[in-house]
Amino acid sequence: MPANNQFDMPIAIALHGGAGTILRSEMSPEKEVQYTHALKDALHAAYQHLLDHGSALDAVEIAVTMLEDCPLFNAGKGSVFTAEGKHEMDASIMEGRNRSAGAISLVTGVKNPIRLARLVMEKSEHVFLAGSGAMEFARKMKCDFADETYFFDRFRYDQWQKIKDTQSFQLDHSVNTDQEKPKKMGTVGAVACDVQGNIAAATSTGGMTNKRWGRIGDSPVIGSGTYAHNLTCAVSCTGSGEYFLRGVVAYDVSCLIEYKNYSLAQACQEVILQRLLELGGDGGLVAVNAKGEVSMTFNTEGMYRASKSPLGETIAIYDA
Amino acid sequence: MPANNQFDMPIAIALHGGAGTILRSEMSPEKEVQYTHALKDALHAAYQHLLDHGSALDAVEIAVTMLEDCPLFNAGKGSVFTAEGKHEMDASIMEGRNRSAGAISLVTGVKNPIRLARLVMEKSEHVFLAGSGAMEFARKMKCDFADETYFFDRFRYDQWQKIKDTQSFQLDHSVNTDQEKPKKMGTVGAVACDVQGNIAAATSTGGMTNKRWGRIGDSPVIGSGTYAHNLTCAVSCTGSGEYFLRGVVAYDVSCLIEYKNYSLAQACQEVILQRLLELGGDGGLVAVNAKGEVSMTFNTEGMYRASKSPLGETIAIYDA
Repeated sequence: MPANNQFDMPIAIALHGGAGTILRSEMSPEKEVQYTHALKDALHAAYQHLLDHGSALDAVEIAVTMLEDCPLFNAGKGSVFTAEGKHEMDASIMEGRNRSAGAISLVTGVKNPIRLARLVMEKSEHVFLAGSGAMEFARKMKCDFADETYFFDRFRYDQWQKIKDTQSFQLDHSVNTDQEKPKKMGTVGAVACDVQGNIAAATSTGGMTNKRWGRIGDSPVIGSGTYAHNLTCAVSCTGSGEYFLRGVVAYDVSCLIEYKNYSLAQACQEVILQRLLELGGDGGLVAVNAKGEVSMTFNTEGMYRASKSPLGETIAIYDA
Repeated sequence: MPANNQFDMPIAIALHGGAGTILRSEMSPEKEVQYTHALKDALHAAYQHLLDHGSALDAVEIAVTMLEDCPLFNAGKGSVFTAEGKHEMDASIMEGRNRSAGAISLVTGVKNPIRLARLVMEKSEHVFLAGSGAMEFARKMKCDFADETYFFDRFRYDQWQKIKDTQSFQLDHSVNTDQEKPKKMGTVGAVACDVQGNIAAATSTGGMTNKRWGRIGDSPVIGSGTYAHNLTCAVSCTGSGEYFLRGVVAYDVSCLIEYKNYSLAQACQEVILQRLLELGGDGGLVAVNAKGEVSMTFNTEGMYRASKSPLGETIAIYDA
């Protein structure tokens, strides 16, 4: 075991950049290196914060902010285009110590949606704000805004142009055979355990290409996309959002631990490999508990993911 | 047992019009009669539908639509004023047979939000739509819209005028000592079990007086305000929405039944009388299961509620 953890309490960080059909045949070596580096940078920054006795809450915010700032992932800067050519973003964050939570949805122009979600948790009396009201709150909180050029990406724009006059929307996780490039995965997220034994979870997304009607997926929904309770686990999900909402996936993991005494790994496997599949959903999650155990579970061909604890480091894309 | 149930399968309907501090001293006999009649009308209409072999899904829609149309309750026509003087409504519906679900949030001018939620479930590929996008979907679906005069209510308007220039918002469930009239409770909802043994849940709300920033409570959130699964139960919640979101209350009832083999009553009591209180939240819920058992549980002084099954009928406001 590496000697860099000098504390009695274990620390751990795990993060994802989306799950889905990530075919090796569609992934160039250059792209793979870019994704791996982006995951590693966020992982190491958050882990260093934990090594420095920082909180799990700060660690997941650091990791998700860095993934939001990276154009490779569908969140923050890399968000996909809606049917109206906008970038509508959702995010949520939850702290396991006291189960406080913050979430925002359908926000445009906010540079780091996860920071806004945290401000909702800490500076409002609410849990969930959306739309123009949430943006008014963001301005009151002096959040950084960015203009359209910041969010513009040629590949994303072309992706949108291809389908914008149709009724279809592109589930970032689903197979799209007429597309050569690797899929931009739908969500980013992180979970962490700090030296105090506190855990936290954070999730952020740019939604689906050509999405309309103010669709909200699971990412900003406490219990479905994000959940954290020191007693059980912290979870961040990614996948076919509608199924994660109906399955209340993040809280389901917690309930199997609390009510059936499952281990973290057993609970994640039962929820993702059985219960979610039975409902028809695909995707995955990252989870930690207050003992610093980590699970990264998915029922798709791949999930951009990374984890680090005193036991070692994992950075991977495809199924093992 | 009354003989009006000619089927082997039990049927049942339960509904609520909000929970909170409903003081007898603040309730006039006339008001009490009005509330009781409104609850009874919705109850009987939905129950008759179940007697006629109608589905649980239709029954909860019938009940909630009638409560939305009644100015006494904070949903639909009776919705309270936001900080901007608007009526922003949320609703959700879920079917236990296949766990399909629909939800809408931050919708203005839609006469019956619960019908829109059902259309989201049945006519879109999504679960959760919000804001102007959800209203665009409503127009596409040819939903009935109503203008501001339909939603205007003098009492609600005065309620808003009193606090509109403050930063405060009025949680409809909390004590407000400087107010003479009975509190307008925050939410309406219904759960039902039909002759097929299918169950369903529906919830609808007008939010909080003077609410701002696009606040979303638990009512439109699957797992928190509404949940239904034939295997376990159908649940509709009402109360301090932020705590119901953090507690994932509706799904928690289901998990206690599924994972710990609790009875419906045990599960509702543990969630509302213990777990929600530990988190600091107040409110209640109505629940049924596929055996036609009913639970109406709350930790507040009262909950507008009604239930009917072959075993009998209950209509009540205060604690027993």
